[in-house]
Amino acid sequence: MTKKTTRRDLLRGGLAIAGAGAFATTAARAQGDPAITELQPWMQQLGEGVDARPYGMPSPHEAHVKRRSVEWLTADPVSSVNFTPLHDLDGIITPNGLCFERHHAGIAEVDPAQHRLMINGLVDYELVFTMEDLARFPRHNKVYFLECAANSGMEWRGAQLNGCQFTHGMIHNVMYTGVMLRDVLATAGVQTAGKWILPEGADASGMTRSIPMDKALDDCMIATHMNGERLRPEQGYPIRLVVPGWEGNMWVKWLRRIEVGDQPWHHREETSKYTDLLADGAARRFTWAMDAKSVITNPSPQAPLTHGAGPTVLTGVAWSGRGSIPRVDVTIDGGKNWHQARMDGPSFDKSMHRFYFDFDWDGKPMLLQSRAHDSTGYVQPTKNQLRQVRGENSIYHNNGIQTWAVDARGEAENVEIG
Amino acid sequence: MTKKTTRRDLLRGGLAIAGAGAFATTAARAQGDPAITELQPWMQQLGEGVDARPYGMPSPHEAHVKRRSVEWLTADPVSSVNFTPLHDLDGIITPNGLCFERHHAGIAEVDPAQHRLMINGLVDYELVFTMEDLARFPRHNKVYFLECAANSGMEWRGAQLNGCQFTHGMIHNVMYTGVMLRDVLATAGVQTAGKWILPEGADASGMTRSIPMDKALDDCMIATHMNGERLRPEQGYPIRLVVPGWEGNMWVKWLRRIEVGDQPWHHREETSKYTDLLADGAARRFTWAMDAKSVITNPSPQAPLTHGAGPTVLTGVAWSGRGSIPRVDVTIDGGKNWHQARMDGPSFDKSMHRFYFDFDWDGKPMLLQSRAHDSTGYVQPTKNQLRQVRGENSIYHNNGIQTWAVDARGEAENVEIG
Repeated sequence: MTKKTTRRDLLRGGLAIAGAGAFATTAARAQGDPAITELQPWMQQLGEGVDARPYGMPSPHEAHVKRRSVEWLTADPVSSVNFTPLHDLDGIITPNGLCFERHHAGIAEVDPAQHRLMINGLVDYELVFTMEDLARFPRHNKVYFLECAANSGMEWRGAQLNGCQFTHGMIHNVMYTGVMLRDVLATAGVQTAGKWILPEGADASGMTRSIPMDKALDDCMIATHMNGERLRPEQGYPIRLVVPGWEGNMWVKWLRRIEVGDQPWHHREETSKYTDLLADGAARRFTWAMDAKSVITNPSPQAPLTHGAGPTVLTGVAWSGRGSIPRVDVTIDGGKNWHQARMDGPSFDKSMHRFYFDFDWDGKPMLLQSRAHDSTGYVQPTKNQLRQVRGENSIYHNNGIQTWAVDARGEAENVEIG
Repeated sequence: MTKKTTRRDLLRGGLAIAGAGAFATTAARAQGDPAITELQPWMQQLGEGVDARPYGMPSPHEAHVKRRSVEWLTADPVSSVNFTPLHDLDGIITPNGLCFERHHAGIAEVDPAQHRLMINGLVDYELVFTMEDLARFPRHNKVYFLECAANSGMEWRGAQLNGCQFTHGMIHNVMYTGVMLRDVLATAGVQTAGKWILPEGADASGMTRSIPMDKALDDCMIATHMNGERLRPEQGYPIRLVVPGWEGNMWVKWLRRIEVGDQPWHHREETSKYTDLLADGAARRFTWAMDAKSVITNPSPQAPLTHGAGPTVLTGVAWSGRGSIPRVDVTIDGGKNWHQARMDGPSFDKSMHRFYFDFDWDGKPMLLQSRAHDSTGYVQPTKNQLRQVRGENSIYHNNGIQTWAVDARGEAENVEIG
């Protein structure tokens, strides 16, 4: 085989020094390992057949990989949030069963045969579509992240929650299939005065948000599928609005109506909520796009290093509501030295990106941070830089740099520095 | 809004002629539709909260979307296959719960803490890795299809099975995360005489296949994750070999050992099985790469058209083990006229591609076919072209063009023509 002087040679060199920094065991020494010397039960018996699970589930050994909620966070679980276990995932796709949930009246269990989408307001024809009607429009496939505006919101006042699932887990990233909103609106005929839309959900909260017509006609979709199959109930089955790059609250689930109007409606979810309250008491109106952000998912408080010094993989995710992520920097010494991370996997606009930093850990404490650059040239700021502009009243739109302190045992903790 | 003379205008024009070809209902007429005039139950009550499902599942209304097996196909479900419901999916990602299964001794329920990977044979160091050891190698993310060599095998003798789930459903397409096999082999040090590898599985069938070293060092991976989460048990949890573009039987699941040797082993699964028996009684040795192929998933026998004439979406999937799919042609009249389909969604080498053909159905019977072109210039052949070369003894490697006959009611049937 071709020899290259690379990290692989380093690894191999390490192995020659028995036990020192090597992370594999020689077969000779492994003779003392019952996992090698004894036949395991699954090697000696027939397992379940192909008729056992028409719809499969993860291994029982992965039962810890789950969405988690925080009991004290909200008064009731029907108007609350749970969090994607980012520290247990890799790549850029969030599996459907692990996509975080945010509801305002619980999960609407919609019967698609009884569900309709109405287009009304400033249109030539007020129309009503069945789900089959919508399937007759041309379909498109796009990978997008969806981030709640309140993601990392509890960190405005310093390090609060110990784990990236809780600090950054109000995000998921899936491949949507759906129809372009502009195609559906075109059949109704948007009138010249129609400058805004108001999507409305069919759950008991009747969620509504105002969205400018330019965005509606640009890249918004009415999604029917996520990651190949129909939307999950908690993600808006049978249809949800996809508003690429913009805050998750606008992605109305269980979509039942789109009204076309000449001005924004200023409903509850865009006035008392999802606005940024500044230090002087004024609130910013309409912060829609989610700015570039990143977080190291491993190691992190829920995912400590469980090996000693030597070859170590640091990884994390980055995203921007304004484009793609060509570059992420990481530091392991609290910002004294920054290293350009290795981006790996597909890069799509307004999608999660995966980064890695493969390094040899010296076994000493570390201060880990990541800093995303997006395709517009924007660089992820520190939390203090955000506070200097917005004060400390904010809850939403915290895209500041996150820090994990890793000790010599490999345990990680949420801290704030500098 | 900007006006373009497009399909959208056609749709809109259709709507102006009440009831004739229009596929939406005007709001005024919808006043007779209880789905519009009455509040649905889910609009009047609180649904499940965020603590209800730590790992989510599809809507009960999607219970028909499942893997299916064919009872008469094999003697026992532990050494059998089930099929991906391609006709119920869209986009290019197969959800993990719906990826087809093929086992030779049932699903090995492996405990990752007790599982090891051994590298032995013609190497400088015979090594044993824990699952944590493997996680210290650089990780990579790739989307690949996996197709069983026997996919469409029952169609060699003409149209047999009524549904693309059964004729073409031994395929799935997921995003893998894993380490490069070449990196792991490098730590062991492959000797000059080492020209082949023999991966071995930890299930009771002890699956083995011979793979040339060039492929092993090119793009093979040891995968730990699929679509973001750990591999499913039925897909080889905790590790499987990924052999991009090559027949699925080589993608050894529950990978426990890789032996390096100087020649192929000619084990059972590469001699009596997975070879192509020609008309003269000779069998082709080593047909590894899966040639370009496609199938129309909608409409199809399990997914008839349920609307009348007018705007219709035809869709399907295409793939090639030798590259990407820049083009798919479709015909609705049995090959008299071919139309270039619209490719949509990401295009990756050795990955599934999605195509659409949006057209106005005249309500008359159709003969549907699709024909894939891959990036090497290869064009998917007819079944008769394959038979002319290989005779009719074959089971494996049938990538011939599939035909569905659609009648005036929209019902589809598996037929063979020309």
